[in-house]
Amino acid sequence: MRRLWNLEEFPFHPEKLSHNETLMTIGNGYLATRGSFEEGFTGESVTTMVHGIYDHADGMLVPELVNAPNWLPIKITVDGTPFKLINQNEMNLTPKNGALIGYRRNLNLKTAVLTRETLFRAESGAIVRIVFERFASLADEHILAQRVQIVAVDGSPEIEVEAYIDHSVTNMGAQHWGKIETKHDQNTVSVGATTIQSGYRIGMSSVLLSDHKVEILMDTPHKRAVMRTHFTLPREASTTLYKFSSVYTSRDIGDPVLAAQRKLQEAYKTGYDALLQAHCKEWELYWDSSDVQIEGDESAQFALRFVMYHILICAPRHDDDVSIGAKTLSGFGYKGHVFWDTELFILPPLTLTQPQMARNLLMYRYKRLSGARNKAKASGYQGAMYPWESTDTGEETTPSWGDPQQDGTRIRIWTGDSEQHISTDITYGVLQYWHWSGDDNFLKQYGAEIVLDTAVFWGNRVEDKNSRYELSQQIGPDEYHENIDNSVFTNRMVVWHLEQAFALLGWLKNNAPADYQRLVKQLDLNDDRLAKWIDIIQKMYIPFDEQKQIHIQFPGFFEMEYVPVPHYEPRTASVQAIIGHHRTIQTQVIKQADVVMLMALLGDKLAGRDVLINNWNTYFPRTDHGSSLSPAIHAWVAARLQLGDIAAEMFEHAAEIDLNDNKGNVRDGIHGAASGGLWQALVLGFCGLHLDDNGQPAVDPHLPAHWKSVSFTVYYRGEKRHFTVNNPVVETLNA
Amino acid sequence: MRRLWNLEEFPFHPEKLSHNETLMTIGNGYLATRGSFEEGFTGESVTTMVHGIYDHADGMLVPELVNAPNWLPIKITVDGTPFKLINQNEMNLTPKNGALIGYRRNLNLKTAVLTRETLFRAESGAIVRIVFERFASLADEHILAQRVQIVAVDGSPEIEVEAYIDHSVTNMGAQHWGKIETKHDQNTVSVGATTIQSGYRIGMSSVLLSDHKVEILMDTPHKRAVMRTHFTLPREASTTLYKFSSVYTSRDIGDPVLAAQRKLQEAYKTGYDALLQAHCKEWELYWDSSDVQIEGDESAQFALRFVMYHILICAPRHDDDVSIGAKTLSGFGYKGHVFWDTELFILPPLTLTQPQMARNLLMYRYKRLSGARNKAKASGYQGAMYPWESTDTGEETTPSWGDPQQDGTRIRIWTGDSEQHISTDITYGVLQYWHWSGDDNFLKQYGAEIVLDTAVFWGNRVEDKNSRYELSQQIGPDEYHENIDNSVFTNRMVVWHLEQAFALLGWLKNNAPADYQRLVKQLDLNDDRLAKWIDIIQKMYIPFDEQKQIHIQFPGFFEMEYVPVPHYEPRTASVQAIIGHHRTIQTQVIKQADVVMLMALLGDKLAGRDVLINNWNTYFPRTDHGSSLSPAIHAWVAARLQLGDIAAEMFEHAAEIDLNDNKGNVRDGIHGAASGGLWQALVLGFCGLHLDDNGQPAVDPHLPAHWKSVSFTVYYRGEKRHFTVNNPVVETLNA
Repeated sequence: MRRLWNLEEFPFHPEKLSHNETLMTIGNGYLATRGSFEEGFTGESVTTMVHGIYDHADGMLVPELVNAPNWLPIKITVDGTPFKLINQNEMNLTPKNGALIGYRRNLNLKTAVLTRETLFRAESGAIVRIVFERFASLADEHILAQRVQIVAVDGSPEIEVEAYIDHSVTNMGAQHWGKIETKHDQNTVSVGATTIQSGYRIGMSSVLLSDHKVEILMDTPHKRAVMRTHFTLPREASTTLYKFSSVYTSRDIGDPVLAAQRKLQEAYKTGYDALLQAHCKEWELYWDSSDVQIEGDESAQFALRFVMYHILICAPRHDDDVSIGAKTLSGFGYKGHVFWDTELFILPPLTLTQPQMARNLLMYRYKRLSGARNKAKASGYQGAMYPWESTDTGEETTPSWGDPQQDGTRIRIWTGDSEQHISTDITYGVLQYWHWSGDDNFLKQYGAEIVLDTAVFWGNRVEDKNSRYELSQQIGPDEYHENIDNSVFTNRMVVWHLEQAFALLGWLKNNAPADYQRLVKQLDLNDDRLAKWIDIIQKMYIPFDEQKQIHIQFPGFFEMEYVPVPHYEPRTASVQAIIGHHRTIQTQVIKQADVVMLMALLGDKLAGRDVLINNWNTYFPRTDHGSSLSPAIHAWVAARLQLGDIAAEMFEHAAEIDLNDNKGNVRDGIHGAASGGLWQALVLGFCGLHLDDNGQPAVDPHLPAHWKSVSFTVYYRGEKRHFTVNNPVVETLNA
Repeated sequence: MRRLWNLEEFPFHPEKLSHNETLMTIGNGYLATRGSFEEGFTGESVTTMVHGIYDHADGMLVPELVNAPNWLPIKITVDGTPFKLINQNEMNLTPKNGALIGYRRNLNLKTAVLTRETLFRAESGAIVRIVFERFASLADEHILAQRVQIVAVDGSPEIEVEAYIDHSVTNMGAQHWGKIETKHDQNTVSVGATTIQSGYRIGMSSVLLSDHKVEILMDTPHKRAVMRTHFTLPREASTTLYKFSSVYTSRDIGDPVLAAQRKLQEAYKTGYDALLQAHCKEWELYWDSSDVQIEGDESAQFALRFVMYHILICAPRHDDDVSIGAKTLSGFGYKGHVFWDTELFILPPLTLTQPQMARNLLMYRYKRLSGARNKAKASGYQGAMYPWESTDTGEETTPSWGDPQQDGTRIRIWTGDSEQHISTDITYGVLQYWHWSGDDNFLKQYGAEIVLDTAVFWGNRVEDKNSRYELSQQIGPDEYHENIDNSVFTNRMVVWHLEQAFALLGWLKNNAPADYQRLVKQLDLNDDRLAKWIDIIQKMYIPFDEQKQIHIQFPGFFEMEYVPVPHYEPRTASVQAIIGHHRTIQTQVIKQADVVMLMALLGDKLAGRDVLINNWNTYFPRTDHGSSLSPAIHAWVAARLQLGDIAAEMFEHAAEIDLNDNKGNVRDGIHGAASGGLWQALVLGFCGLHLDDNGQPAVDPHLPAHWKSVSFTVYYRGEKRHFTVNNPVVETLNA
């Protein structure tokens, strides 16, 4: 069904400009471009992000992913009136400045093609229908293609079309590009530029194709070359123009401008239709393993495709030295930094449906082990301690202070210091990938070193308090409570981590003795160290209330003020925002799944059902879901606990985060973790996919009452396994 | 599934205030009230319309349905801050004027209960959760019930609640009420008022119930009595208040104020929960026959329930002297006037699923035969000629001139003079009701007189032009072309009408000889008259192009300028609005289904499939759907012609008219005809419900490709018949 694959805007909604600009991002795993308009619009945040191109601008706290030159510009004038999106309030037949009288935009999730149909009246009264189409080729990630069809619906207008590359781009004012050089030949224009601090070079090249003569003009004020064509279009006649662009960076090749120019020649020789066909074929392969089909809930069906689309367009296909930032490549939020969001939220759907891309993401971490070792060393610890926020360098890039608030004060950001569970989260991602892919080579050569050297860090990091081990000054997933001692999430995950490290060592010893020897030597995994790990596993302090039979988020949590979060419905902000930061940190209000996150990751390995239910009943009503990461995890856990209604409600909540902009910040980019979380809530939660006691994939479904079935495909040890899960008792439509 | 029965707004969307105010109208067939807020909001159009209460205000062109006094007001202050919907941009903990920090509104279509949950912060910092609920009882149409629950979420605020009836209402400035009297006793307030021109009296009475003492105060400036209570609500405590109101008019009873007061006593003795239970039980019965279930298309499913809800809340249950206006009871659009929209669009779903209410609507026309005879006589014709726009009097109430345009000119409105097909449309409704209900008594006593006296009109109206009969100065369904000669729609329907009149006479002669005799005598159905009818049937001019094998909308149509309507996509206005009124009338642009409407009404009785397809191919691309009546009829006909994709597209278009406000005028009220049209497109179009050669109900389904099944219930001769129509070849979700 068309609408289950298509995100549509009709008519133009200027009030949703930024929201739709994010949602309609296109990409190919190499770069992504927000859904900005060819002719521009006031208030747009025109952004193209190329993986791996970070830069630390003068005066900024931290480095960020750099906004690349804009390849979109195509400016059309109709009888001298510039085409733009001007809604008209009255039907003037010769509107000054023109008028938009028709508009429909569609992002086809199946093919990653963005189409915009418009109907425009010029001041002359002439009416043109202009249809724009664009895609970032998945078949050749250096090719960007645009098509413009113009029909003279009424009148016989003079049409002028200009196209160029706009290199005057910034990151919301921050200037990253220097050494900007523009070139042009008879029919192409090119731009070269270098990031000022980090020294990455980018090369971009564009060509405009038309049935009519294209000439190159210099736009001296803007220091750029412009491709221009003009012609008269008789009434009811039509014409089609194409703009192709190519992008390379110094991460790909020595001379990116030259490479872009050459690729451009290849692109326009191939032609739009053939490029589109090849692109669509690649997308078909993507969906062949990554699509999920839900019968009985069209909103859920659409939401799943939407989130998977956004993961796929930013997942690096051919590059194992980059990772996915918290806002994917779709906005400036979190500056393109990589968090735990990647390994625990975004990675799993890739591990299970696109294992090669999951491997690329994990290789990014492997290649940054030195950064993690540097951070451990600088903090006085052994082993590898991954940064909370990571960029190209692998160094910690979490800012220590927030931007000044209205009253001038700044809030100290502690996550870079204290949210240390990231090292275990990465280990979780490595082992999940290994268990499902069976990629022993990856494990032996790369993954094991991550798991073991982060274990070395924990073995050294934990604090020996006589009879037990503790961990002070932590931040768990619930970031409302900072620098706490003995976060049950972190303490328990450390135990899991060390257990896994042990198991891994045993496996290596048997299956890869050379690698075993190498790692034991390299990481100094001596007997004393291993003995301490065993001691930690046995004596780590796991805060638990024996009387209530619940895990304690951290000692002292229940001594704080209790705030009845459910009373704060139907709030449109977090409880933190409602009662204020200063009060929140002294209450039991929880930002996001914390003990519940532990339940998601460890399942019944954490405790028996009674304790899990007690935990749920304790923590769910205290959680305000101030983080977009929270609802999907709650849906997942509720589904496993067979709390059907609440699981369905949380799932719906998660599904709406980007599509409905419930948090009001989609302008900053797609919530990547919420996207991956939604897929996990479905496949791991509702369908209960797991590896059984024989290590084989199996399901244990508890679908929402009104769902009929879910079908999905996962890779298991290189083979595709298809599952269809039926709901034995489907509620009828009457219910 | 909850969301297939619920229309939700979350959070508050002030930019959709008027749209949602219309969509969230509640009603019970006696009155309806728009979804305005208890505490008021700037820009609202607070409206309660009671069936049958028309008045012609001083200085207005025509009478209109009168806005009744407002029974909604409940004003709450929290620590002195008046509760209202003020969105806050920043999280101020003590906001001046207060702040809305939570909002969710839900209209339950299954129960016709409107609920609004809010979270509000007072200037004091106190936070309250306030939940409003309201319904217009279907079990007792004179009872209106409101419930307010208040929870002190944070702080222990002083709460003050005031409730009253607001009699200072107008119809967008037009004053209809005079002789306003207010009364109060110890705990109730009452209002009596009389329409100035028409002299209808209304009586309304309200009571406020609280756990705390309620006192009555006089609000002298507003000349009204106010019920007030106040109390302190300790933190986390809650309280519930009720407001009951009752409404009567002089159409019901001699002393409506007294009746309202008495009913009010009854209501609050019964109590909210029992009233709600009785109300819901009645709605269950409504849906038991009027619900349609669509599997495989949730948007369509929801849309069907939405339109049926809006028909049911305005369909007169116990009153056979009122009818449904073009905008139902949900807005001021078309001033509550009754058009052909009722009989050809809104009536059929009632005829088939709620025959008693269909009968009421037809009785309204029967009781206005004298108005129709007056109109015929005044125009120099015999028989009954129904007015194009009808109110309580049955006289023609179409204005002759539109409101002045921006340049001061006014457009002459010809529909009251020339859109004469209304008389046949009513006959169509009568006979459709008779065929399905088998209600012979209705036919004999009332319906036949409508059919026959309008036939008398036509027999006299048509013009004898030597060898053939013609009809000049008509407007067909396509209102872009006015005062044309020989509208094929009207001419052909006149033939159908006279054929039906003949058949009816034969039936009466055999089955009701006394009524036959009575009507023959009363309507002077002499042999000459009947012979002329036969002659007209044989010689009526039906414009047809023998070469192209198509019906001609009217002679001269194809000589006008051709405008390629499909080129004007994706327009957000009608082509008429784009190219202007003056040019449109000289082009082949068609406002709405005209020949296609004829195809819908007569089906294959009009012509063989070849001609029908030719007609479709000719007229569909010339139609701009400038009327909301058009898309559903096109869906219906396309389904019958097995043009699946276009049928599905038109259906979706029709389904979105109110829900998406595609025409931008939902503020004026629900598009009643589009609502009934959607049901017909589904049941008569896609499912192909019809009476077969044996007079038995049968289906002939051609469902949209992705639909799985449709289930619906219709009444046939007093018995319920349930149909489930399966799609033999359903497209999978992968398609």
